Amino acid sequence: MGSDLRQPKVVVLGGGSWGTTVAAICARRCPTLQWVRSEATAKDINEHHRNTGYLGGEVELPDSLRATNDFSEAANTADVIVMGVPSHGFRSVLGELAKELRPWVPVVSLVKGLEQGTNMRMSQIVEEVLPGHPAGILAGPNIAREVAEGYAAAAVLAMPDQSQAAYLAKLFRTKRFRTYTTDDVIGVEMAGALKNVYAIAVGMGYSLGIGENTRAMVMARAIREMSKLGEAVGGQRDTFAGLAGMGDLIVTCTSQRSRNRHVGEQLGQGKSIDEVIAAMNQVAEGVKAASVIMEFANQYGLNMPIAREVDGVINHGSTVEQAYRGLIAEKPGHEVHGSGF
Amino acid sequence: MGSDLRQPKVVVLGGGSWGTTVAAICARRCPTLQWVRSEATAKDINEHHRNTGYLGGEVELPDSLRATNDFSEAANTADVIVMGVPSHGFRSVLGELAKELRPWVPVVSLVKGLEQGTNMRMSQIVEEVLPGHPAGILAGPNIAREVAEGYAAAAVLAMPDQSQAAYLAKLFRTKRFRTYTTDDVIGVEMAGALKNVYAIAVGMGYSLGIGENTRAMVMARAIREMSKLGEAVGGQRDTFAGLAGMGDLIVTCTSQRSRNRHVGEQLGQGKSIDEVIAAMNQVAEGVKAASVIMEFANQYGLNMPIAREVDGVINHGSTVEQAYRGLIAEKPGHEVHGSGF
Repeated sequence: MGSDLRQPKVVVLGGGSWGTTVAAICARRCPTLQWVRSEATAKDINEHHRNTGYLGGEVELPDSLRATNDFSEAANTADVIVMGVPSHGFRSVLGELAKELRPWVPVVSLVKGLEQGTNMRMSQIVEEVLPGHPAGILAGPNIAREVAEGYAAAAVLAMPDQSQAAYLAKLFRTKRFRTYTTDDVIGVEMAGALKNVYAIAVGMGYSLGIGENTRAMVMARAIREMSKLGEAVGGQRDTFAGLAGMGDLIVTCTSQRSRNRHVGEQLGQGKSIDEVIAAMNQVAEGVKAASVIMEFANQYGLNMPIAREVDGVINHGSTVEQAYRGLIAEKPGHEVHGSGF
Repeated sequence: MGSDLRQPKVVVLGGGSWGTTVAAICARRCPTLQWVRSEATAKDINEHHRNTGYLGGEVELPDSLRATNDFSEAANTADVIVMGVPSHGFRSVLGELAKELRPWVPVVSLVKGLEQGTNMRMSQIVEEVLPGHPAGILAGPNIAREVAEGYAAAAVLAMPDQSQAAYLAKLFRTKRFRTYTTDDVIGVEMAGALKNVYAIAVGMGYSLGIGENTRAMVMARAIREMSKLGEAVGGQRDTFAGLAGMGDLIVTCTSQRSRNRHVGEQLGQGKSIDEVIAAMNQVAEGVKAASVIMEFANQYGLNMPIAREVDGVINHGSTVEQAYRGLIAEKPGHEVHGSGF
């Protein structure tokens, strides 16, 4: 930060693992306040510099990070808002913010998903509920626990205004967390929403004992399929080959901790989607996203074979074997311009 | 194949694991002859339908695949040439072919590497030594043994003429091997030559205990760096996000069988490159390619930080720790247009 500038105050809304990790990153750079619903979590952060519930007892948060349960305090403090609340609560939190937030305060979403019912991206909701506030997203291959533990990682901050993006990106940077910039808000949001479906496809493959070649094939074709839809809605192709696209897909498909990969594996063992969901205490975003992609595919007249097969298993009674057989039966065409798998 | 057309005769030159695997794929489609130097290998293929030395005793080759030691027979039989010989023997084999091959016979290279000394791509050598012969390349995430064992996999066949590419691609297809097409010969050849250096970079990271986020970050940035050079020499960006780029990089970086990854891991354990090479019975292409990339980078005025750090460790006495510190110290810029790591 330039030494003559007043330091911007960052307010992170949400007390989950990634929101807390981002808050900890920001707190190393500038005054940061985290709004959390739970009094116990606020106390844990303020008194013990821990978010034990989400990050365990080992991860120490910076002393400079302060937490509050007071939403008004948070809204009135903010020079920058970071939205760490899940997609289903996103709109209502913005509605509360609208009553108190100063004009022009930028809103950076951490959410990789679309609004249920409307299929809106989070930045679209910001534009609707908080007009005049620049809306962006921070995304990349970021398993929260690893970042919190200090492993090197990178993300991309997408904002419409590149000069603002370059300035804001400094707030989300440490020695070990690299924040790149881009103007492609749509592409980054779509990549985050779509990749989970493809992680389920790869997870299904694991259960069939696919080889390393096969897995790489599915991932490469997934990037092409995601790009196709992403471009149709206004995103840029390069984004899907970048951190929020390919980078996040690699982590989501290979990590043992990936919920979406786990869903695919469980489906491959013959369980129904209801059984799989019942056995998990968290929702895997890809389960909902599969049918959403099919809505987009119909709307834009696109052939999305991988998503179609995942949707078939989740929502239409296909088996994982049928899904893979369906893909393999398609004739390969031009790698970039072909319409099929 | 159209039923009225005379079946093209495919001739595969080279008796290695991938050449044999591709020959076996072709032999399921049309008459295929494999030229191998070793009499024992030819006998093994013809009499036992095995290439035990390269593919082990379990992989059975199709009865229709025939092998020969007679180069003239091979050259005179060919309607399509598949070059499965290593890059260092590529030019001399083409020189021999030039004396006997009929005009216009297309030459499909399987080689992921550049000619030492000239830094030429294999298709450039074909244009020089066999003018008038269309030159292409088949590449992708293809661990030979897995393909030979029947795991599903995909590759891309790059040829300048797309109608010829579509026709030829049929020869390289089975139920489980998917050959896509593209016109980007340069991009596919560059991706194949470059990716090994980036696999060494990821291998180095393993030895430092990098996390899954870090690995995905390095791979995503590697694709961007490869694209930059690939485009400078005339390739297309999409190729690097496809099977020959990202697809092959994923396999090369994650597979336990990857020689280049192994080199990076060994360097990270403090061994010198000479010790690492001495302990391997095969050469890892990335070792040579690191300095070649730096030549290209200088020639085109490009900043290639990952390749630079790998080159530093292999050729200029840096440690793996210094290499990663060098990367992490760079300030992240615009994800697509930034010049640094």
